[in-house]
Amino acid sequence: MRIAVVGMGIIGGSFCKAIKKHTDHYVIGINRTQATLKKALADGAIDEIGDEKSLSSADIIILALYPGAAVEYVERNGEYIKKGAIVTDSAGIKADICPKLKALSEKFGFKFVGSHPMAGKETNGYVSSDGDLYNGASYIIVPCGADGEAVKTLSSLAVDIKFGMVKITTPEEHDRMIAFTSQLPHVLACAYVLSPCCKNHVGFSAGSYRDVSRVANINAELWSELFMENREPLIAELDTLIDNIHAITDAVKASDTDRIKELLNKAHKTKEELGE
Amino acid sequence: MRIAVVGMGIIGGSFCKAIKKHTDHYVIGINRTQATLKKALADGAIDEIGDEKSLSSADIIILALYPGAAVEYVERNGEYIKKGAIVTDSAGIKADICPKLKALSEKFGFKFVGSHPMAGKETNGYVSSDGDLYNGASYIIVPCGADGEAVKTLSSLAVDIKFGMVKITTPEEHDRMIAFTSQLPHVLACAYVLSPCCKNHVGFSAGSYRDVSRVANINAELWSELFMENREPLIAELDTLIDNIHAITDAVKASDTDRIKELLNKAHKTKEELGE
Repeated sequence: MRIAVVGMGIIGGSFCKAIKKHTDHYVIGINRTQATLKKALADGAIDEIGDEKSLSSADIIILALYPGAAVEYVERNGEYIKKGAIVTDSAGIKADICPKLKALSEKFGFKFVGSHPMAGKETNGYVSSDGDLYNGASYIIVPCGADGEAVKTLSSLAVDIKFGMVKITTPEEHDRMIAFTSQLPHVLACAYVLSPCCKNHVGFSAGSYRDVSRVANINAELWSELFMENREPLIAELDTLIDNIHAITDAVKASDTDRIKELLNKAHKTKEELGE
Repeated sequence: MRIAVVGMGIIGGSFCKAIKKHTDHYVIGINRTQATLKKALADGAIDEIGDEKSLSSADIIILALYPGAAVEYVERNGEYIKKGAIVTDSAGIKADICPKLKALSEKFGFKFVGSHPMAGKETNGYVSSDGDLYNGASYIIVPCGADGEAVKTLSSLAVDIKFGMVKITTPEEHDRMIAFTSQLPHVLACAYVLSPCCKNHVGFSAGSYRDVSRVANINAELWSELFMENREPLIAELDTLIDNIHAITDAVKASDTDRIKELLNKAHKTKEELGE
C-alpha cells in the first residue's frame, strides 16, 4: 500500500518510522516545514517527500495534526484524495471532529475511520519520534460508520506496526474514557506542581513525586485545545475527582482514621482487581 | 560496626541486604516473625538472628517499624541499648515521633538521629526487599540535636550503601515537604482511581494513567497512620491542591482558553526550571 502521513511531529514521525521498520508499505511524508521532510527522508522514515497533490496516489492517509488543523487540512485538500482511500486522524478527541471528517468523507468520496494511537512522550516534534513509540500501546478505532473492510485494513496495519491492542469504540465512549485516562492526569499533574513547595522538592522526593508530576511538563498549546474540545466529559471527571479528593480531605480533617482507611482500601482494591 | 536492624519488612530487609552487599559491617536482624529472620539469614541478608538482648552489642540500631511501633519498641526495650549507640528510625513523619525518640534517648543514654530513606515500592514485606532499593535515592537526616559525629557516621553509612544524596533538615521542614512529595501523590492517586471509569480503562489508557495511578495500590493501614500523624501539613497541601484543581476546572467551565493555557504554562515552567 501507499500510505501518506500528514504532519511530521512525534505522532506522524513515529507512524512513518514504525511503518518503514515493520512493513513493506511505501510512505509519503507531507509537512509544512520542508526541512523536517528532508530529515525524515534522510532517516529512511519516508520514501518520498509529498504535498497535497500526492494524496491522490495514497491508499491510506494518516492525519497527524492538531484536531482543528486536521479538519481544516481535509476541507482545503479533500479534492486531491483518491475515491475510496482510507483517511484516519490521530486526534485525542473524537465526538467533536469525527462528524466533521465523516461529512467531508461523504463530500469527497473517501472512507473516514477515526483513530487514536495511545502513546506519547513529554517531548514533541519529529526529533522525539520513534519507530518503537507504539510498541504494545493501544490503538483506538472509532469506525464512524465506515465499512468493516476499511476498519480491518487499519486494524491490521496497527497490529503490523506493533500496537499491542486494538480497541473499537464510539466517539462518545472514547471521549468519556479519554477524559479520565488522559486529560484528567494532565490536569492533576499540573495542579500538583503548582504548589509553592514544588520548587524545593529535591532531596525530599522519590518515585511518587516523579510519577505523579511527570506529565506536568506539558504542551500548553495542544492540551488547552484538547481540554476545550472535550469540555463536557472532562468537567464531569474533574467534578468526580474533586469530590473524591474532598472525601479523603474531609476524613483527614475530621481525624476519621476508619474513613480514611476505607477510602484508601477502596482505591487499593480497584488497582488490585485490575491486576495493577 | 555491628548494626541491628529491627523490622524485616521492605525497608528493614533492604537495609540489611544493602549493608551486606556494600560494606563489611556485621548485621543483626530482629523481627517478630522468626520465619522471616531464618529466610534473611539463609539469604545472607543478616549475619545473626537477634532479639532485644542483642541490642546491647549494636553500635547502630535502625528501627524499620511503623512510626508508632518504633516509639513503643524503644520504650519497651530501651534498657538493652548500649550507652552512646546511634539509634535511627525510618519513619515517614518526623515532628510527631522525633521528640518522643529524643526523650527516650536521654532516658536511656543513646544518641537519636532521625532519618527517612526516600524509597519504596507498591509491594511490602521482606519478600519485596532489595539490596538496590536505595541506589540513588535520597536519605533524609533529621539530627534532632545529635552531635555532628553521630550525624556523620549515619550519613557515611548512607553513602556507603549507595544512597544518591543525603539531605539534612528539621522535623517540621521534613513533614511539610513530605506532605507534598509523598502523601499528596498517594491521596491524589487514590482519589483518581475512585472514578467509576477506572475499571474500564484498559484499551483507553497509556503512560499518564499508569504513572498517576501507580501508588493507588496502597497499604491502607500504613498510609492512614502516616496521614493522621502528618495531619496539619497534609491538610495545607490538600487545600492548595484543591484550589489549583479548581482554578483549572473553573477555566475549563468558563471556556477560558487563555486562562487554561496560562495555568498549564506555569506548571510546564515549574517542571522545566527543575530540569524535569
